[in-house]
Amino acid sequence: MHESDGSARRSSPLEIAPGEFRALGHQLVDRIAEFLERLPQRPVTPGESPARIREALVADRPLPQAGAPPGELLSRAADLLFAHSLFNGHPRFWGYVTSSAAPIGVLGDLLASAVNPNVGAWPLSPMASEIEAQTVRWIAELLGYPADCGGLFVSGGNMANLVCFLAARRARAGHDVRTRGVEGARLRIYCSTETHTWIQKAADISGLGTDAIRWIAADREGRIETRALREQLERDRNAGERPILLVANAGTVGTGAVDPLPELAPICSEYGIWLHVDGAYGALAAVVPDAPAALRALSLADSVAVDPHKWLYAPLEAGCALVRDAGKLRDAFSYHPPYYHFGDEATNYFDLGPQNSRGFRALKVWLALEQVGREGYVRMISEDVRLSRELYATIANFPELEAMTQSLSIATFRFVPADLEPGEAAEAYLEQLNRELLTRLQNSGEAYLSNAVIGGKFALRACIVNFRTSATDIRALPPLVVRMGREADAALRPESLRLRASTP
Amino acid sequence: MHESDGSARRSSPLEIAPGEFRALGHQLVDRIAEFLERLPQRPVTPGESPARIREALVADRPLPQAGAPPGELLSRAADLLFAHSLFNGHPRFWGYVTSSAAPIGVLGDLLASAVNPNVGAWPLSPMASEIEAQTVRWIAELLGYPADCGGLFVSGGNMANLVCFLAARRARAGHDVRTRGVEGARLRIYCSTETHTWIQKAADISGLGTDAIRWIAADREGRIETRALREQLERDRNAGERPILLVANAGTVGTGAVDPLPELAPICSEYGIWLHVDGAYGALAAVVPDAPAALRALSLADSVAVDPHKWLYAPLEAGCALVRDAGKLRDAFSYHPPYYHFGDEATNYFDLGPQNSRGFRALKVWLALEQVGREGYVRMISEDVRLSRELYATIANFPELEAMTQSLSIATFRFVPADLEPGEAAEAYLEQLNRELLTRLQNSGEAYLSNAVIGGKFALRACIVNFRTSATDIRALPPLVVRMGREADAALRPESLRLRASTP
Repeated sequence: MHESDGSARRSSPLEIAPGEFRALGHQLVDRIAEFLERLPQRPVTPGESPARIREALVADRPLPQAGAPPGELLSRAADLLFAHSLFNGHPRFWGYVTSSAAPIGVLGDLLASAVNPNVGAWPLSPMASEIEAQTVRWIAELLGYPADCGGLFVSGGNMANLVCFLAARRARAGHDVRTRGVEGARLRIYCSTETHTWIQKAADISGLGTDAIRWIAADREGRIETRALREQLERDRNAGERPILLVANAGTVGTGAVDPLPELAPICSEYGIWLHVDGAYGALAAVVPDAPAALRALSLADSVAVDPHKWLYAPLEAGCALVRDAGKLRDAFSYHPPYYHFGDEATNYFDLGPQNSRGFRALKVWLALEQVGREGYVRMISEDVRLSRELYATIANFPELEAMTQSLSIATFRFVPADLEPGEAAEAYLEQLNRELLTRLQNSGEAYLSNAVIGGKFALRACIVNFRTSATDIRALPPLVVRMGREADAALRPESLRLRASTP
Repeated sequence: MHESDGSARRSSPLEIAPGEFRALGHQLVDRIAEFLERLPQRPVTPGESPARIREALVADRPLPQAGAPPGELLSRAADLLFAHSLFNGHPRFWGYVTSSAAPIGVLGDLLASAVNPNVGAWPLSPMASEIEAQTVRWIAELLGYPADCGGLFVSGGNMANLVCFLAARRARAGHDVRTRGVEGARLRIYCSTETHTWIQKAADISGLGTDAIRWIAADREGRIETRALREQLERDRNAGERPILLVANAGTVGTGAVDPLPELAPICSEYGIWLHVDGAYGALAAVVPDAPAALRALSLADSVAVDPHKWLYAPLEAGCALVRDAGKLRDAFSYHPPYYHFGDEATNYFDLGPQNSRGFRALKVWLALEQVGREGYVRMISEDVRLSRELYATIANFPELEAMTQSLSIATFRFVPADLEPGEAAEAYLEQLNRELLTRLQNSGEAYLSNAVIGGKFALRACIVNFRTSATDIRALPPLVVRMGREADAALRPESLRLRASTP
């Protein structure tokens, strides 16, 4: 192409010659393969203190003046991370909604980083932009959402939900909110009390403030109460406020509850508000044959947020925002500064979201979708749901475990000692006890749960978005919780809460 | 640790056994090494049409029903991306501000993705969280910014600037903006007309609206006019509006101009407004011994945005937000929902930014900082700046090239045919001609520039944040531009603009 050749190349300390790159890459791949091999035998987490981790890192070291050989550095980084990390790729990791990372996605991230396309603008990333567009469409197809929707990859659920929130704000504010701001607009947004904290971050960031959120009560299954929603909408409309957005949950973060989309869509039409579905965790369960009917109504939504780094098992980060009317997504984000010299014949992703420069998050998701196809995801997601139901059913066989909820792949329960004196003090103690149990369980490395709050009660929560979890892993959990519950109880319980009848 | 063993493992279509992972990983590393080897001989971009790219991808293919072997998929992905991408890692890529990706960063991304820590919360990423904290501190040290500042990694410059913008909004709004919103607050923000479009996205997203931006004139060198700034602040204060934020540029996106920080800091103190520095591109030039004095005053700022995926040569994505008072960053983002069960003895990054789940962007930057140390970055950044000055000086030797600006590592210039009839029509033609020249140059793959607008004139712009660019590469540019300029001119120029004197 031109006269540049080896002799004219610049000598940079950061360069790694291709031969050395090959050797370092092979060594690192070998370390990772070995790590993956031993993962099931490791603790889920070493459960160490911050002080211990900082000591291992030598955290207070100043920036080095001189450099060090890359092979040593990569080896040290692998040592530090393999020895002192929590592994969401472990078969017994069931905390929060973080999935095991698909190995093909890990290699996809390597390739994306090596090619380093800037997927902010089409000319800077021709193939990567088209792969992103295809992946977005495939996700829409998986969900039963219109394939001609607008959409893009973002960092995760918070950002995917925020992008949709801003599209709704732009479309429904009733004035040019992007230019004039939200001043004087009295915009109001609606969601159940079970909604993830992204809604507070979005209301805050967007200038509406969290006071603009109308928290609607949820029923005992964690679904928004449509009557309460209507009442609030009426009150606000009569008071001269402007309802613009209803957030429906397709899998609440606490219990996996799915809001009744078929009932909510007509309410949104009636009040002229945008229907957004937070499906960050649960939307992909729509692929399962016996999915809740409400989930299969995703196509009614004006926008959907879904996280491929959750139930498509992509490595972090991969969130995805889908907006039914592609023009409404563009209208919410597009700016054309004078120093941009791009055509319009293809999608420039800086027009569709808050970022300008963007990495190539789509590749790992595209590879995983290609590797297993729709059939593979139906099988894996179904199996996660089935294992969660089995866990819930098994808990009933343990008298000291109180089963609380099960939906999608989330089961909640708590430990209740056999001889606990009932009453108000017992409830406070159960929270203290289950918190302690959870901390002990997490630090033990034997399995990893997180928690939920169910009707005011502190619960243990197992969320299975993990293609490595087997029935054996699930069956090991209840006896483990009972053992740790008894140990925590022995350490914590005051004499006053011991049933007199059970005292010898 | 527990009884899980091979026999009880789940069979998942997405799983790749460690032995196969090793083989696939080696193959991919070999492909990447070969790609890096040949990169200087390739075109910077194939310059193909969207239709051609879509054809190569088979872009309209529906989601596959069944899966495919991972080796084939990785090989196909590498084929598609190597053949149909623009390469910012090429020695002759000088467009926008996207850098060559450090090879150690590419391997760092592989390791980060394999371990897959969720750096949203400390217990989910003990070592990764501490490495991020150390890397943030090292970046502050490089910049001469207080090492005890608050900070975190984000997707890039837009998000780093937005995070700082929101910290400023929270700190200076005068009421609880996170709860009550911006309604009635009449907040105003100040920046020069040379500021990057992130400011519009931030004003829009944050609910202030772009009307809240006070665009202050820039001088001929592209620096904000402090007198005009003072006058606008006075007018707004007298009108009952609330100035909260001044954005200063440490390297404007167009020409690399640095606003006069030492003059701006006292103005901000006087008016009680937050001083934010957008150093996404240029802040790291503060390490160069002969850096502009204004740059060395970064420590005066309340916050700084800087992009390690620019002048630390990290693969995308790596932006970094720094806030002098760590508490003010936390105050702008922290929420503690009931389902979060985290201690306070270490940093949970979901408290410091818009994301909850977060990938491990810091690792690639940490590895690069370790590989070359401060000395290595001083050398590489100095060399980029030196090459830019050399380019600018060389342009003076070409009568058909008009040198326009040079600052940091950005030089701007344009092609002016020798025999152009002067006048108003000539100016319009020069814009048309240089646009066409730029398109031809970009599509040729021989080198990649972007553009700037200098005093209303369309300019070609070479921005060198590329540790692979040599003096040979730079010296090849002016003759190339002259050749393409003549070709474009021959194709475009109307007879009326031909100097009569030069007609035979």
